[in-house]
Amino acid sequence: MSMITIREVSAYVGQEVTIGVWMYNKRSSGKIQFLQLRDGTGTIQGVLVRNQVAPEIWDEAKLLTMESSLYVTGMIRQDDRAPSGFELDVTSVKTIQVAEEYPIAKKEHGTDFLMDHRHLWIRSARQAAILRVRAEIIRAIQMFLDQKGFTLVDPPILTPSSCEGTTNLFHTKYFDEDAYLSQSGQLYAEAAAMALNKVYSFGPTFRAEKSKTRRHLIEFWMIEPEMAFVDHEGNLEYQEQMLEFVAQSVLQNCQTELQTLERDISKLEKIKAPFPRITYDEAIELLHREGFDDIQWGEDFGAPHETKIAESFDKPVFITHYPTEIKSFYMKPDPKRPEVVLCADLIAPEGYGEIIGGSQRIDDPELLAERYEEHSLSKEAYAWYLDLRKYGTVPHSGFGLGLERTVAWICGLDHVRETIPFPRMLNRLYP
Amino acid sequence: MSMITIREVSAYVGQEVTIGVWMYNKRSSGKIQFLQLRDGTGTIQGVLVRNQVAPEIWDEAKLLTMESSLYVTGMIRQDDRAPSGFELDVTSVKTIQVAEEYPIAKKEHGTDFLMDHRHLWIRSARQAAILRVRAEIIRAIQMFLDQKGFTLVDPPILTPSSCEGTTNLFHTKYFDEDAYLSQSGQLYAEAAAMALNKVYSFGPTFRAEKSKTRRHLIEFWMIEPEMAFVDHEGNLEYQEQMLEFVAQSVLQNCQTELQTLERDISKLEKIKAPFPRITYDEAIELLHREGFDDIQWGEDFGAPHETKIAESFDKPVFITHYPTEIKSFYMKPDPKRPEVVLCADLIAPEGYGEIIGGSQRIDDPELLAERYEEHSLSKEAYAWYLDLRKYGTVPHSGFGLGLERTVAWICGLDHVRETIPFPRMLNRLYP
Ligand SMILES: [Mg+2]
Ligand SMILES: [Mg+2]
Repeated sequence: MSMITIREVSAYVGQEVTIGVWMYNKRSSGKIQFLQLRDGTGTIQGVLVRNQVAPEIWDEAKLLTMESSLYVTGMIRQDDRAPSGFELDVTSVKTIQVAEEYPIAKKEHGTDFLMDHRHLWIRSARQAAILRVRAEIIRAIQMFLDQKGFTLVDPPILTPSSCEGTTNLFHTKYFDEDAYLSQSGQLYAEAAAMALNKVYSFGPTFRAEKSKTRRHLIEFWMIEPEMAFVDHEGNLEYQEQMLEFVAQSVLQNCQTELQTLERDISKLEKIKAPFPRITYDEAIELLHREGFDDIQWGEDFGAPHETKIAESFDKPVFITHYPTEIKSFYMKPDPKRPEVVLCADLIAPEGYGEIIGGSQRIDDPELLAERYEEHSLSKEAYAWYLDLRKYGTVPHSGFGLGLERTVAWICGLDHVRETIPFPRMLNRLYP
Repeated sequence: MSMITIREVSAYVGQEVTIGVWMYNKRSSGKIQFLQLRDGTGTIQGVLVRNQVAPEIWDEAKLLTMESSLYVTGMIRQDDRAPSGFELDVTSVKTIQVAEEYPIAKKEHGTDFLMDHRHLWIRSARQAAILRVRAEIIRAIQMFLDQKGFTLVDPPILTPSSCEGTTNLFHTKYFDEDAYLSQSGQLYAEAAAMALNKVYSFGPTFRAEKSKTRRHLIEFWMIEPEMAFVDHEGNLEYQEQMLEFVAQSVLQNCQTELQTLERDISKLEKIKAPFPRITYDEAIELLHREGFDDIQWGEDFGAPHETKIAESFDKPVFITHYPTEIKSFYMKPDPKRPEVVLCADLIAPEGYGEIIGGSQRIDDPELLAERYEEHSLSKEAYAWYLDLRKYGTVPHSGFGLGLERTVAWICGLDHVRETIPFPRMLNRLYP
């Protein structure tokens, strides 16, 4: 008799197997108990017929409460009426633990209550499905980048200072020095690209912002590719190819999960390269045509602007060539028009906003030194970053994808708090 | 004409290609310049013959200094005398930048100097090879766990408190609360295993220890699998299979890198499951036989002890069943002998010490509550962790692999500081 997981049942039809499971629901007539079982890899219905098992097995099953743990033994039967296509004709149950009354079982709970019980909430079908899609998105990104010759590098989390001021940074004492938690691994990834050509990082980043929106987490994960000898246009091509690969991988490997989430998969099927590109100038015009009087050339977009722009397209859209003034110090100005930079934000459809920001980087050491002055960056702290332009500077580009926003979009969620096992938000550090 | 990388040259023999490269060395006779070129994906020698190119190309190449960047064009020629098997007959060079005098070029530099220039040091053949092996080890681990049905989960880095006291923790203000940087994602991974069955985390962990040894970093990366319905013995089997897979993947995919590192690959070829297992009791006896009088039953091993134990084996060795007293609060006592726990440390050969620590976890809620008392753990802060034992507790196990020590071992390095792009150590927060 084999010990298997629910994911594997299709290979064991007609065979007796044992599975370690939790019971998440039970229906019972006097003659049959229907046990809804989950093991974290899937769900299956166990059917227990009174006159086909010993009385003590029948009675033991009757005691099982929600989230009780057990080893269940039975024959796998193909059943096209079952949601998973299979059922288990139970021959034996061996209780591990009859669970105490499950706190998040019965009624509709408020978000705070569910977040306080996040360690249990993630067991629910919907939350578990989201976490599996998250893992598949990461897996697909890594596979895509691996196939394209990228090398994973892990930039430091503890950094001596930041390129964007310290107000939104978490501070810690690093022995006798001051250190801050990284907001981005990009600058370090640039150094690595000069050593390894195409690299990417995948790690946690931190913003100590007191904002409470459905798009923000305090602690979030970023994928940050950086590519030597790749220009602005090449940068966009990698991004759209990567997102197409991600969407197709999720469609192929997460069918059950997308069904659980009731995701409209026709929306995901449309995520195919190339993506439309509009310039910042065109985006401003579009907004003015649509009646947005609250934004002028030179100002950054807010969430309502991004949503309006995205509505004009059924794919993600690149907004390129933002004003130099409102973008980061390291972005390369357009040689033909230095008041804008060779950058793009990628705006997801359906109101999910910016999921990628990227640019070609400044490769001219003199221009970069000027930017240090303009942005009051410490020449000592960033001496190493300037070195990258002194010793064999090359055209190079990169981008950062916000994982949680991407998961929210692919899963069709209302809020990023469900996209990560244990979200960190304003007033939320537990569990 | 194709724009390619050096890794791809074998597919372009006899064709003219252009490659973006850095020059890392040059030899020259009056008639031929030999350009040693690297692009981060590999190295190739460019051969420039005076009477076969225009004088201005010859002169341009003559100006190239170490780490200068250029686009080089030429014909790929198979050459079995070349280390990589290929050479480039240069027809043209287009300089991007003639580099300033390279600071780490000439002489032997001390470690501090190299670490201050880590952003450039990683360009050297040896350091780049290590970083590629590191990426391959991560890739192999992820592929192995993926094939075994594990789901990647990302535990939080910012946590309200720690299971092991706060003295070795980095502290930060989390708005009005106190937060600490994670030392391990294990407890959260356990929660996720109850939702998803087999999970693993891969992320940075932090120890604010003032130790300066060749095995310690302040910031290091851990892979932490956690498995529902898996016991102590099953736990060891996953570990040895995973490390065999890692070693075989590196042997297969990093031949050039291992050669650059002059690694004795016969040592790596021996890393095949099963690994030997000895109990803590047997390890103490072994040490006493070998003349170590400085350790008694009940004490933890130091580095010299681990090295001596490892010398008796040519594979990694599991030391199992440590005294309960010296191990973490969450480890499950051996039911037959509760003064020891169902745990194992995996000690690497060649003096690399402990690379994995793992155990079966306590599944009895009452015993875990007792441990909270004994270890003065906050019932409030860890209420969620106890919940995992109240609502369908199951036997479960997990382990944590220290990535940097594993990289040091596989690469055969003297010090973990070379195993990560930007190491964080005592007095080392730059670059
Ligand atoms: Mg924006
Ligand atoms: Mg130890």
